[in-house]
This record gives sequence, structure tokens and C-alpha cells, in this order.
Amino acid sequence: MEFLCDKRIRFQHCDVAGIVFNPHYLVMCNELIEDWFTDGLGMDYAALHRDARLGTPVVRVEADFLHASGLGDRLRFRLAVEHLGEASLRLGIEASADGVVRFRAKLKLVLMSLDSMRAIPIDDAWRARFAAYCNAAPDAR
Amino acid sequence: MEFLCDKRIRFQHCDVAGIVFNPHYLVMCNELIEDWFTDGLGMDYAALHRDARLGTPVVRVEADFLHASGLGDRLRFRLAVEHLGEASLRLGIEASADGVVRFRAKLKLVLMSLDSMRAIPIDDAWRARFAAYCNAAPDAR
Amino acid sequence: MEFLCDKRIRFQHCDVAGIVFNPHYLVMCNELIEDWFTDGLGMDYAALHRDARLGTPVVRVEADFLHASGLGDRLRFRLAVEHLGEASLRLGIEASADGVVRFRAKLKLVLMSLDSMRAIPIDDAWRARFAAYCNAAPDAR
Amino acid sequence: MEFLCDKRIRFQHCDVAGIVFNPHYLVMCNELIEDWFTDGLGMDYAALHRDARLGTPVVRVEADFLHASGLGDRLRFRLAVEHLGEASLRLGIEASADGVVRFRAKLKLVLMSLDSMRAIPIDDAWRARFAAYCNAAPDAR
Repeated sequence: MEFLCDKRIRFQHCDVAGIVFNPHYLVMCNELIEDWFTDGLGMDYAALHRDARLGTPVVRVEADFLHASGLGDRLRFRLAVEHLGEASLRLGIEASADGVVRFRAKLKLVLMSLDSMRAIPIDDAWRARFAAYCNAAPDAR
Repeated sequence: MEFLCDKRIRFQHCDVAGIVFNPHYLVMCNELIEDWFTDGLGMDYAALHRDARLGTPVVRVEADFLHASGLGDRLRFRLAVEHLGEASLRLGIEASADGVVRFRAKLKLVLMSLDSMRAIPIDDAWRARFAAYCNAAPDAR
Repeated sequence: MEFLCDKRIRFQHCDVAGIVFNPHYLVMCNELIEDWFTDGLGMDYAALHRDARLGTPVVRVEADFLHASGLGDRLRFRLAVEHLGEASLRLGIEASADGVVRFRAKLKLVLMSLDSMRAIPIDDAWRARFAAYCNAAPDAR
Repeated sequence: MEFLCDKRIRFQHCDVAGIVFNPHYLVMCNELIEDWFTDGLGMDYAALHRDARLGTPVVRVEADFLHASGLGDRLRFRLAVEHLGEASLRLGIEASADGVVRFRAKLKLVLMSLDSMRAIPIDDAWRARFAAYCNAAPDAR
């Protein structure tokens, strides 16, 4: 299973060359992760922070900016879990328009306590939720 | 030779956990590249855009967020050229405080004409300038 | 007639105090203006830039940040035209949650040619479109 | 007395028209306020947050964007206190290049406890520091 979400390229994303400035792709990835928690995993991302006191900092990014996107373009984002670790997960993200992949990234997130600022293990309930979006073989953990 | 630059973590870089939000590291890398062109390579980055009509879009990023940084921290950024291609260069960037590397990235840039929006080969004059910051063996091209 | 649009407060909008950092309200106002052109006025905002070569720079802002908003809050934005000038328009914008106004602003925009970078008069066709969202008395021009 | 600070317009500040996108002026104002606390008032802005647990949210902005600025421009920012209230201060800020004012703003800040999220009165020690940058008549309080 994948999580899908469409996003429109906004004025604030674009640089003097009229194309998306690369850090804004990571902002859009962060929005996508919010959407995934709230709309896909059924865990409101704000409640995750406020009530469960959990954050999801990114510890590693690999990103390829394959084709430029400009103001008004609509990108179809796809997100899947590629790897589930003890306290981390690696997401595969793609953004496409007209069937062409424009942006592809792997983001490694850590589940972190906002009180101790330390990584905490993913418990079984969370693991089951994340696993539903896992595109890897079951023994890939 | 390396290019060095100190940057202070600003309020606008920090998220609700009080630490740098990851896209802002890429904004700081872009600032660093501007500083390198203007102050290191002796080519004003604004003139590069306005007069030479050249941009330097990032086509690939690999970044590790090793230790969190917070408001007011001063980071020492280091930049070196790791690889010089026909129309691209790969930069190695590190940001440290108190001798500890907090952020490490490889960014692949392309030299792009802002008129044709296409990559253009790095000529000999530019190649010599970039090579002065190259930490790779001479045959690594 | 007013233009209405709901926006969710995102992680990237929030500062170390956990509330919206004030410049992001202006980014959201800009998004709202994009939405208004595209979905309200029936003029795709990207086409306005790309084809009609028109921009809408803000030349004056008055904004009151009345109550703080935090991650996950849903704000109902309202936009109306308060004044139509020769080459400018003043918008009144409000953002509310639970019936309480949190943010209120007046933005003066100019219709600007992206080729000459100069203000251009609002023609009758545009004037009629904008006037449909005008909450002022008809002689207020 | 005024607080002065030069800032260079960066790639990340500029929009598709090649000029500063208006929210970035407010980000630069926030940087200026940080610089003023740290370098002018002798109170490190990060320590203000971390140790004194005080924030300085903006509650009102009036800003005029008088002339466009582009990539590489160097702006001379000037900041003065225009009014000192019980728990608030109103700053006058101008940014100029080549003797021409490009941006002018009034920002009202509140001194806020980050623990209670409530405004707190400005004590005599702070009042004296702020007053040194006050350009108003002494009875203007």
C-alpha cells in the first residue's frame, strides 16, 4: 500500500529561475509525512506532538531532483515505507506529473520523545500501522 | 583548499522542538554556495545570475543530520569540491560546532544557462577556479 | 461576496514557541491570493504569470496577530476587496478558528507587468471580476 | 541612538520576478531584532529564550514595500524604538540602498513568557536598555 497526495506548486516554492527551490521539496515531504500520519495512519500529527509528545526528525536524506517543476504544476506524491528499524523508518517518496517522476527521495525518520529528545523504539501497535505501508519483503526488518 | 564560513542558527531555522528544521540546512548550504562564489571564487553570485545568466541548481543531495543544533548555535561550515564533471560538480559540506560534526552533505550542482534552462559544460577558466577547492586526486575527474 | 478557504497550520509554520511565526501568515495570505485568482476569479494564477506576464506584488501590509495558532489548527480565511484603485487593489483578509478572529490584515497589491516591472492599469474586464468581491460602497473607488 | 545592520539579499529571498518576496522582509526584520538584542542590547537572543524563557512575538505590523530589491543587493537596516509600553515596544525599521529607502515598517512586539505564554511587564532594567534606542520624546510613553 502507498499513501498518495497531490500538491500544487506555489509562488513561495519558486526561485528566480521560476522553478522549485530545492529546500521546498523537503518542506513538501514534511507536509506529506504530516498528511500520511493524519489521513493515512489515522494518527493526527498535531496530537502526536502535543499529546503523545513524539516528533519525527529526519536523520538522513537522499534526494534526486530529476526534472524541474514550475508555478502551478500539480505533483502527485507517493509515499511508502521501505524499511522499518527499531526506532526508525525509511520512507521512499516520489513526485510525478504527467507520468514523469520529477523528484525522488529516501528519508530516514526517527521516532523521538520531545521530552527526552531521544529516539524511542517503535512499539508493536505503531509497527503494525507502519507495516501496512511497507513495500519491502516481510523479513527486511 | 577548503572554503570556510560561520553561520549562526536563527529563530527562523528552528522548529517546535527548538532545533533546526531540516530544509533550513539546505537553505544554509545554498547561502554557503553563494558565499563561496562571491568570497571564495571571486565571482559575485548575483552577477553570475544577472550578467552571465548562469544558475547552479542542485540535482542530487545526500545529507546526514548527525546532531541537533538550536537557536544561537554558531556552526562552522566547510565546503570542498569532491568531483568535477563535464557540466556538474559535487560538493562536500560539513557543519561543526565545538569540534563535533553536526551536519554532513554531498550536493551535486549543475551549471545551467538561465536562458536555455540547459546544463552547459564547465569551461577551462571555471574548471581551474573550481579545481583550487578540489580535495580529490587529480585523476578523479 | 467573499472568497473563503480553509488552511491547516503546518509544522513548517511553527516556531520554537509552538505557534505560527509571523512571516508565515504572509505566505498563507499569498497562497490565499493564488487560490482566489485560480478558484474564485477564474484566472489561473500560474497562467497570469506565465501567459499574461502579470504579477501582483504587495506594496503595503497592515496586519494584526490577535491570537496565537498552533500546529494542526484549521483556520478559515476570508478575503474581500476593500478598495479598487487605478492599478491597485486593497484586500481585507481575516483568519478565524472557532469563531474567533486570530489574524486580520489589509494588503495592497499592484498589478505589475513582469516585462516592464511597472504597474499597469486594471482594465474593465478585470475591474468587473474584482468588483464582484468588493465589500465597499460602489462609489468607494 | 539607532541600531544599524547590513544584510545581503540572498537567493532564498527572491521570487520568480527576481525580487524579494514580501514575507522574507519580515524574516529579515526578525533577524535584525535578534541582532539588536545580541549585539546592541547586550542580551544574547538565544539566552533570552533558553534561560530567561522570554519570547518577543510580533502583534502588529505596518510595512511599506517602496522599491524592489534583487539578488545580491546590500541593504542597510536601521532600527529604533518608537514607543515603549507596559509590556510592549513599537520598533521603527527602515532598509535602504544607495540612500533610497526601499522598505519601511513599524513592528509592535510584546515581551512574552514562554512558560505562561502571556505578556509580562517590561521591568526597569529592560526599560532603560530599550530607552537608549528610543527616538521619541521622553514623555511619549
